[in-house]
Amino acid sequence: MTQTPAPARARRVQLVERVLEANDAIAAATRADLVGRGIFALDLIGAPGSGKTALLEATLQALRERPGAPTPAALVGDLATQRDGDRLARWCDQVVQISTGQGCHLEAGEVRAAIAELTLDDVGLLFVENVGNLICPVGFDLGLDATVGLFSVTDGDDKAAKHPYLVEQADLLLLNKVDLLPYVRFDRELFLDDVRRLHPEVPVLEVSATTGTGLDAWIAWLVSRVRGAT
Amino acid sequence: MTQTPAPARARRVQLVERVLEANDAIAAATRADLVGRGIFALDLIGAPGSGKTALLEATLQALRERPGAPTPAALVGDLATQRDGDRLARWCDQVVQISTGQGCHLEAGEVRAAIAELTLDDVGLLFVENVGNLICPVGFDLGLDATVGLFSVTDGDDKAAKHPYLVEQADLLLLNKVDLLPYVRFDRELFLDDVRRLHPEVPVLEVSATTGTGLDAWIAWLVSRVRGAT
Repeated sequence: MTQTPAPARARRVQLVERVLEANDAIAAATRADLVGRGIFALDLIGAPGSGKTALLEATLQALRERPGAPTPAALVGDLATQRDGDRLARWCDQVVQISTGQGCHLEAGEVRAAIAELTLDDVGLLFVENVGNLICPVGFDLGLDATVGLFSVTDGDDKAAKHPYLVEQADLLLLNKVDLLPYVRFDRELFLDDVRRLHPEVPVLEVSATTGTGLDAWIAWLVSRVRGAT
Repeated sequence: MTQTPAPARARRVQLVERVLEANDAIAAATRADLVGRGIFALDLIGAPGSGKTALLEATLQALRERPGAPTPAALVGDLATQRDGDRLARWCDQVVQISTGQGCHLEAGEVRAAIAELTLDDVGLLFVENVGNLICPVGFDLGLDATVGLFSVTDGDDKAAKHPYLVEQADLLLLNKVDLLPYVRFDRELFLDDVRRLHPEVPVLEVSATTGTGLDAWIAWLVSRVRGAT
């Protein structure tokens, strides 16, 4: 077995830089707005099927049942369908589905346009569920406070090592579907060793959106960040 | 819940067209080479953790045990690590790991450079495992004969509807991890209805790389295509 590096992608570097500059300017405006309103906002990034929407459903439901919890709003990106938006709208009054067409990640302009459709007066917590993709959403600043990376035990214990940029950027990592650990091959120590090597300080919470395992710790993290942001 | 379309991405259309033109020229050269050698080559596209490498491991093992089977070779793309290449090299003499860095999909130039590292004299079947991503690999011609889309029951029954471009482009769809159906919520009819709506003729095979379910049908499809290509 041999290993070959990718050919230089230099011809595209300048183009990418211009796109990112435009994106960052919009993200900065969004950040100023959200900080001014005291809203804590996070970018939820995970593979297709890692359970982003299921986690947000369970989270929104739990927040609704918790007296004094911050009022949430949610944006959700997908190439096609508004199924995720419909799922979240069962638990949250303020939801906007962003249809990216062939776009493999959310960009600051899409998020800013979607935020403009929300009524933010009472909102303290904004969830942005990115397009299902472990690669492209990383590095596109959306003007939010935190990046939360979501992995799933059914996706294998090698996914942190294979997606170092997400692990390095994340403020929190969630390992989802731990209820399925008895049925799949997943070496928790291998996964955590890769995480520690790439980003020693990042907290990792094990959760199951289906059974509710670990949701209390996740919601405690959210509430602590909302308090910190206001 | 409201729905907002993505802002126009027109400023990038011209750039993307130039990148694709360069890619397609290289892909055409690869295609001519492979056709000349009578090699059937496929692009395996699936989400991170959908089981692409596990499927190829099981496939390579089965081909090794089958008298008269075509000799395989494999390329595998990842952002980082050569873990997948190492896994495939246990079952196949001709394996090249392509490290894409931050690249979210394989491009024709990377595949062509990797093919140049293979000894193709006896090879009849070339597997190209794309970077784990349901979006970006679609539409980048690599000069291969077929696109195989891989979905997993643990990723949810909505993934065909949410990734219409892959479903429309695929010559074959595989639904993997069917051994885990008892433990997850997955409406097979919903999934298949979405597939039928998007691409009525595409064959769908249910497989489990772990238990071997469905592998015979998948290998029969491969062998039929190798014969057709030579």
